[in-house]
Amino acid sequence: MENVFDRIHNHHLHEKVVSAQEAASWIKSGMTLGLSGFTRAGDAKAVPMALVERAKYGKMKVNVYTGASLGSDIDRMFAEVGLLNKRLPFQADPTMRKKINQGEFYFIDQHLSKTSEMVRAQVLEPIDFAIVEAIAITGDNMIIPSTSVGNSMVFAQYAKSIIVEINMAQPRLLEGLHDLYEPGKQGDRSPIPITKPDDRIGSIGIPVDMGKVRGIVFTNQKDSPSTITPPDKETETIAQHLIAFLRQEVQEGRLTNRLAPLQSGIGTVSNAVFHGLLDSEFTDLEVYSEVLQDAVFELMDAGKVRYASCCSITLSGPKMEQVFPNLEKYRDKLILRPQEISNHPEVIRRMGLIAINTALEFDIYGNVNSTHVLGTQMMNGIGGSGDFARNSRISIFVTKSIAKDGKISSIVPFISHVDHTEHDVDVVVTEQGYADLRGLAPRERAELIINRCAHPMYREQLMDYYLEALTRGGQTPHILEKALSWHTNYAQTGTMLQKVLQRG
Amino acid sequence: MENVFDRIHNHHLHEKVVSAQEAASWIKSGMTLGLSGFTRAGDAKAVPMALVERAKYGKMKVNVYTGASLGSDIDRMFAEVGLLNKRLPFQADPTMRKKINQGEFYFIDQHLSKTSEMVRAQVLEPIDFAIVEAIAITGDNMIIPSTSVGNSMVFAQYAKSIIVEINMAQPRLLEGLHDLYEPGKQGDRSPIPITKPDDRIGSIGIPVDMGKVRGIVFTNQKDSPSTITPPDKETETIAQHLIAFLRQEVQEGRLTNRLAPLQSGIGTVSNAVFHGLLDSEFTDLEVYSEVLQDAVFELMDAGKVRYASCCSITLSGPKMEQVFPNLEKYRDKLILRPQEISNHPEVIRRMGLIAINTALEFDIYGNVNSTHVLGTQMMNGIGGSGDFARNSRISIFVTKSIAKDGKISSIVPFISHVDHTEHDVDVVVTEQGYADLRGLAPRERAELIINRCAHPMYREQLMDYYLEALTRGGQTPHILEKALSWHTNYAQTGTMLQKVLQRG
Repeated sequence: MENVFDRIHNHHLHEKVVSAQEAASWIKSGMTLGLSGFTRAGDAKAVPMALVERAKYGKMKVNVYTGASLGSDIDRMFAEVGLLNKRLPFQADPTMRKKINQGEFYFIDQHLSKTSEMVRAQVLEPIDFAIVEAIAITGDNMIIPSTSVGNSMVFAQYAKSIIVEINMAQPRLLEGLHDLYEPGKQGDRSPIPITKPDDRIGSIGIPVDMGKVRGIVFTNQKDSPSTITPPDKETETIAQHLIAFLRQEVQEGRLTNRLAPLQSGIGTVSNAVFHGLLDSEFTDLEVYSEVLQDAVFELMDAGKVRYASCCSITLSGPKMEQVFPNLEKYRDKLILRPQEISNHPEVIRRMGLIAINTALEFDIYGNVNSTHVLGTQMMNGIGGSGDFARNSRISIFVTKSIAKDGKISSIVPFISHVDHTEHDVDVVVTEQGYADLRGLAPRERAELIINRCAHPMYREQLMDYYLEALTRGGQTPHILEKALSWHTNYAQTGTMLQKVLQRG
Repeated sequence: MENVFDRIHNHHLHEKVVSAQEAASWIKSGMTLGLSGFTRAGDAKAVPMALVERAKYGKMKVNVYTGASLGSDIDRMFAEVGLLNKRLPFQADPTMRKKINQGEFYFIDQHLSKTSEMVRAQVLEPIDFAIVEAIAITGDNMIIPSTSVGNSMVFAQYAKSIIVEINMAQPRLLEGLHDLYEPGKQGDRSPIPITKPDDRIGSIGIPVDMGKVRGIVFTNQKDSPSTITPPDKETETIAQHLIAFLRQEVQEGRLTNRLAPLQSGIGTVSNAVFHGLLDSEFTDLEVYSEVLQDAVFELMDAGKVRYASCCSITLSGPKMEQVFPNLEKYRDKLILRPQEISNHPEVIRRMGLIAINTALEFDIYGNVNSTHVLGTQMMNGIGGSGDFARNSRISIFVTKSIAKDGKISSIVPFISHVDHTEHDVDVVVTEQGYADLRGLAPRERAELIINRCAHPMYREQLMDYYLEALTRGGQTPHILEKALSWHTNYAQTGTMLQKVLQRG
């Protein structure tokens, strides 16, 4: 059996090994923590849990910055014990979501590429402890991250102190798959030299001043598996419509069968879209994304994807069992980068990604709400969708056309919260079809969206709104006093559908 | 007197000189035109006017793409004679605006950095004629633009044919001030090698296949002067608040007195802000912006600005008289670039600009409407504000806190149209004060914005809304059924102010 100390190549660091409880005891109320972890992968586990235990027996509040959502129920426990003052930039836990919406603590919903800039520019509360999961610390003083990179690099570099969690349950074979690049401060920065997804530009670990490493904790706990459900009939249909759109692009001569580097947001619909590519004619594909889900590994196994760049690997339990012991076979096909680089506007624009993200709802002019249910209740956060949508070659948003058995239409006259404006939305896709909005003015967009994407049960109601709005005029016609009535009707009557009796 | 043919160094091109009327006669109904011109500067003048004359006597419709707004009343005349089918990406003419809002033709409101990508990717109607103003055509077959670059390069390169207007009234001394750089197609592109505003990376003119030049028209007409009004008491106060914010940044150690490269949108408030820097302690400044207005030249003359990069120079009549005959003295301080490069996300993010743009209205959570009056009526367009706000180091929006003698509050509970989401808005400034929103959650933002930026006559009314919204909860509390009531009240009663009698 491997000696745990084999994971710390610098012998002077061996004396820093402590229990999670001891490390957690260094954290005081009022402090700010920067945690590893991105979409349930590579999160620091033991110290946060020990901190939760402490918080049960004493009033304390801390700020918690992460890469994105945490696994291991840490966000749930943080919320339950009332440990948080401020949380950023993303979360996806039902309990945490509830507490955020109750106003129990502050949540900042941030573009995932932006947190690092704010840390570097020192406009956020400074980080007292970076707590980062690793698979090893090298002899040349680099921390090797585990299944995600997230913001670990910038947190470690800017934190006053660092706690490293070396997780023996994470695959050792990850070493060498990371590419850690520090762009430097804005205004004092060279171009990021990535022109294709497989460009290596950095080091295999996070170079740190080991004097800042206050403690090293050994853990042995796997990441939480992905909660993504398999494709269903509707998400498969969405995937087919999206593939039909891509096929059309190839026919028009704007793309080849290799497409362009693909990005896909996390989620069931996005996973289904990638799954749909398995049986398509597209091949020799590249992925430049945040999170790799199950489907990307299936595409690699099928020889469809030649290379995938990400900042996190979030898999189902069975897929973890297949992939992690066999990482060697993906060594020439896989790279893990900091989320600032995976989501960097510069690189996204240069490579011209095809970006596929999920909408909660969109309006008849193509504005998208990704975050707020009924305009007020936070779901997860904008994540990387804004980084990608704004700068991609083709910005695609997908969603089912209805929710809650048709009581909610995902296509509404006026969205209750805007995350992506019409300027950044090229194509919208539902199980009904796709609408290619590029080069279209708002009045052209409206008819296309209603006819192609809305559920038939809502088309007439949407067209009634639009036709009445047209009588008022404007570049973007609306009836302001009715604009949000679909949402208020839902809140009051339980459905967005009017004239239920006539249609019944 | 200069021989006009001295402006065409390639003698083979002399035979292509034609009248504006003849050139205009080549344009057929259904065609798409790509015109030079950005915020009243460097617009093609004679051929568009000849086209307007033709259109008076025959039914024709064309698509018109430009850099931004045109001068010389061309947009007005285009709109009046009903020549347009589709117009993009920006305009600022009252008559055109009215026709757009009446739905007489299609207007696409686009990020100014994006049009070039869409032309290159061939997702817009292909350009039949590029009509570009120039000061000369060099012996090595380059078109030297005049007072703006705009989209002239990509239009000339992708158009089937080119008509060049050589304008003898434009300053010949502009030659050598342009820097034309073609990034190439997305996915087949190197990093843009700009790391500071004065980096020269391209050629002094647009290299073109002269076989595509169908005609050359000589003109002699100055640009329309800027319509910017001088600073007034309120815009001066806005400038002072903004300077107080910048001073605070220096005190916090986040900036030095050299600040960071500055961008400022076109308009009276932005010009006043730059004007306000004249008497500040800030010095050795750099500008990396779209349009240079009067104040930037005053700052250069005062030794405050060491370098200014732009894609257009739009001056008042008196300032034109001062600057254009004396361009030699600005030769080492000035560069004109394509709008794609002046507004490029990659460069903006790398240099970490301080971006100052104008809001029509913003809400209590920091979302900004830049374009649509009462959510429906287009004012000018988003212009470059989205390019800059999303990628800058500090994204600042400025506006007066009230309009129409207080009948309109520029700070509302819920904006009627969203161009910039809370994720992209760092600081908002009115004549009442500034609110630094960085690192703040929505509930923290609301109180700050109401107390610091709203006009006193609206503060209680805003706070009443916010407190009632808080009782509903949510990450971003709202009362959806009242969210747009300020706008509908204004439409119905002529004022957003409630309880007028009690307050009178």
